[in-house]
Amino acid sequence: MTVRAAAASGARSVVISPGAAVAGKATGDEETRVTDLAHMRRAIELAARGRGTTSPNPVVGCVVLDASGRVAGEGFHAHAGGPHAEVVALRAAGERARGGTAYVTLEPCDHTGRTGPCSAALLAAGVARVVVAVRDPNPEAAGGAERLRRHGVTVETGVLTAEAERGNAEWLTSVRLGRPHVTWKYAATMDGRSAAADGTSQWITSPEARADVHRLRAEADAVVAGIGTVLADDPLLTARPAGGPPARQPLRVVVDSAARTPAGARVLDDGAPTLVAVAADADPVAVRAVAGRAEVVRLPRREPYGLDLAELLAELRRREVVGVLLEGGPTLAGSFLREGLVDRVVGYLAPALLGAGAAALGPAGVATIAGTHRLEFEDVTPTGPDLRLTARPIPLRGDADVHRNR
Amino acid sequence: MTVRAAAASGARSVVISPGAAVAGKATGDEETRVTDLAHMRRAIELAARGRGTTSPNPVVGCVVLDASGRVAGEGFHAHAGGPHAEVVALRAAGERARGGTAYVTLEPCDHTGRTGPCSAALLAAGVARVVVAVRDPNPEAAGGAERLRRHGVTVETGVLTAEAERGNAEWLTSVRLGRPHVTWKYAATMDGRSAAADGTSQWITSPEARADVHRLRAEADAVVAGIGTVLADDPLLTARPAGGPPARQPLRVVVDSAARTPAGARVLDDGAPTLVAVAADADPVAVRAVAGRAEVVRLPRREPYGLDLAELLAELRRREVVGVLLEGGPTLAGSFLREGLVDRVVGYLAPALLGAGAAALGPAGVATIAGTHRLEFEDVTPTGPDLRLTARPIPLRGDADVHRNR
Ligand SMILES: NC(=O)c1ccc[n+]([C@@H]2O[C@H](COP(=O)([O-])OP(=O)(O)OC[C@H]3O[C@@H](n4cnc5c(N)ncnc54)[C@H](OP(=O)(O)O)[C@@H]3O)[C@@H](O)[C@H]2O)c1
Ligand SMILES: NC(=O)c1ccc[n+]([C@@H]2O[C@H](COP(=O)([O-])OP(=O)(O)OC[C@H]3O[C@@H](n4cnc5c(N)ncnc54)[C@H](OP(=O)(O)O)[C@@H]3O)[C@@H](O)[C@H]2O)c1
Repeated sequence: MTVRAAAASGARSVVISPGAAVAGKATGDEETRVTDLAHMRRAIELAARGRGTTSPNPVVGCVVLDASGRVAGEGFHAHAGGPHAEVVALRAAGERARGGTAYVTLEPCDHTGRTGPCSAALLAAGVARVVVAVRDPNPEAAGGAERLRRHGVTVETGVLTAEAERGNAEWLTSVRLGRPHVTWKYAATMDGRSAAADGTSQWITSPEARADVHRLRAEADAVVAGIGTVLADDPLLTARPAGGPPARQPLRVVVDSAARTPAGARVLDDGAPTLVAVAADADPVAVRAVAGRAEVVRLPRREPYGLDLAELLAELRRREVVGVLLEGGPTLAGSFLREGLVDRVVGYLAPALLGAGAAALGPAGVATIAGTHRLEFEDVTPTGPDLRLTARPIPLRGDADVHRNR
Repeated sequence: MTVRAAAASGARSVVISPGAAVAGKATGDEETRVTDLAHMRRAIELAARGRGTTSPNPVVGCVVLDASGRVAGEGFHAHAGGPHAEVVALRAAGERARGGTAYVTLEPCDHTGRTGPCSAALLAAGVARVVVAVRDPNPEAAGGAERLRRHGVTVETGVLTAEAERGNAEWLTSVRLGRPHVTWKYAATMDGRSAAADGTSQWITSPEARADVHRLRAEADAVVAGIGTVLADDPLLTARPAGGPPARQPLRVVVDSAARTPAGARVLDDGAPTLVAVAADADPVAVRAVAGRAEVVRLPRREPYGLDLAELLAELRRREVVGVLLEGGPTLAGSFLREGLVDRVVGYLAPALLGAGAAALGPAGVATIAGTHRLEFEDVTPTGPDLRLTARPIPLRGDADVHRNR
């Protein structure tokens, strides 16, 4: 778990992360290990700069050292179609890369997509050693490590794997599970409520927490809400982060079996594209009213809950959506959880108690304590007066392979 | 806010606390300030060793430096009737205290209680400078700083006040508000539930969290539960901390208007003294059945909720109870909150989601969002897989005076 501490003043911020994340049969001595960790951590930082702009590609960061171990070049993947991180870092390093080491957060690709294979670029530059955090689970792109090894390059994998995976969770999930990664965001009091007894709910969390939600939206490819939330709150659902408008607005998605989204709903404004998911058998008149204002997609029902959410995600994947931010409400979030379609939970916990009022989470298919949805905390960060909690369901599905070192 | 980070391995633990806690007109240069903070922090650490054994006295720690600034003696108050921290530290320092500095977490007392006044002891030892974290709010004992100043000793107050107050919260509350300090403890999922839909609730939180609750019990003078919890869970309510039995078991208190506590309830065993609070008009036959097994106290009712909880606390104060651990359930905790009788909340948050089931907190007198009980987070500590959250209601009542420096 990462715990970030901010002093009451808000000025200071300390990040602590587990240090001993080197998996498998680490070669080299202790000094090499410490150096590897430091450079990989930097590569992960670089990768994170691409968050929100590389989709549907992964974020990737790269640090190249010269033969004597000095940093010769850095790079990250900035947007789909742009140069890969390795290429950027190798260009910066130039001749100094020869005999050096490259740290890459994701296994270098081995296929010729919009750019040439990075494995070939590393070979051409004469890099002697390549250190990789996460193996590429994409069968099309994988094989980079093999090609490098065949040509005599030392390749080590499994360095800071967990940390690098976290930064690429959306993309890794979309490749491994064949559906977008879903982050469910909620805001609640310490006693788990998101509204008072009379339904009022304004400003349970702080301006800082609300700003952070806009950052999450800006990083997502799609923001999903249920018709209950649209009718109750009339949200805009656009990303309005502190630093100014994002490069691109996420797709707004309303889950609305009966096409009840009002023509005047703010989610239908022209601030961002909107998709309204309705039932295949929805009333054609109602559907037509919505279709004039937004794109409409028809989905099968999943009785008795509403629309089939796996189908919704399949539809979003067809639109190259990799990361989904699910903004509730409690009913829709309960269904996503019940169907096992939540990959990360981000909760903004206000230091407040209500004792009555709507719960942050509705029925999620749990009848008895043994059926509890178990997660693990991944990060806790003070956000204004609130806490932002990040948790993931356990067991982590489908990532056993990348922890195996070869 | 203090945030403690434990690596996933559990082995490492880092404590970060706000550094700039020197209040008021700090004299001396930056170096003195840094030295003062370091020694006062040590004094606060020493004071904490008395937690759970000094009641009804405060915890106090003291560090004495010689004239050249080297540590000459350390001490803490270990139990009521035993020597005060200053006396212990001065004894250890002996002649080296002359011309030196004493750091004390609480203003040295000026009255002759079970021991002589500490102000006189400091004067007799020839200490030249006394640094105090928290002024004594007790009119009987206060005046120590004044006496020292009158005799030419330099006295500085307000160093690490907030941190020292936190360590003495129980005692300071009992002096300032004239009633015991109440810590409400709960355990819940991220969505604020403490049982599943069918009522099952075993092991929502981890063994580590449960062990921590035993530590809290051991530090408390009384552990309070509602009859609902006694009937549902039949808890022992004794302190069984990891390090072996505590020096003294807290008083167990059951809030039980109608004297419904079953004769065979485990809370009535001989593991610790028990007090059952019943209504003044409770059925005499029922009361007699309980009175054979525990002490019974009759309290006025506070319609329509149950017993008058302010009267309950007054009764506990008469028994020298300074710190109360309120262990619920949700109904009783809601009443304590509604009456403004909760001074600290300790929540064990499990990384789990239920979506249905009993809420951790029952009605607490909040009808609309403007009436929310607002708190502030004071500490977050990973506890096994769970998080322990500590929060306090804002505004902090009745402590404006001690922040004023004179
Ligand atoms: N605290 C927070 O973080 C937060 C976030 C968002 C909202 N909220 C609050 O939540 C409240 C609204 O939440 P809500 O629970 O009433 O509505 P909701 O979860 O936003 O929407 C639920 C509706 O979505 C439709 N739906 C379609 N397919 C579904 C499926 N498979 N599973 C579940 N629902 C499906 C259903 O209506 P149809 O049958 O008509 O399709 C259902 O009634 C508002 O008061 C809002 O303020 C709080
Ligand atoms: N998750 C946790 O941390 C936690 C902790 C404890 C309990 N629990 C769970 O909570 C459940 C029991 O809780 P509960 O809410 O039913 O019962 P409770 O809060 O333990 O007790 C409530 C009862 O206390 C009596 N009472 C007397 N004066 C009162 C006052 N001023 N205000 C409120 N109550 C007063 C009332 O009964 P009379 O009128 O008969 O006096 C009332 O019904 C159990 O299932 C237990 O497992 C959970």
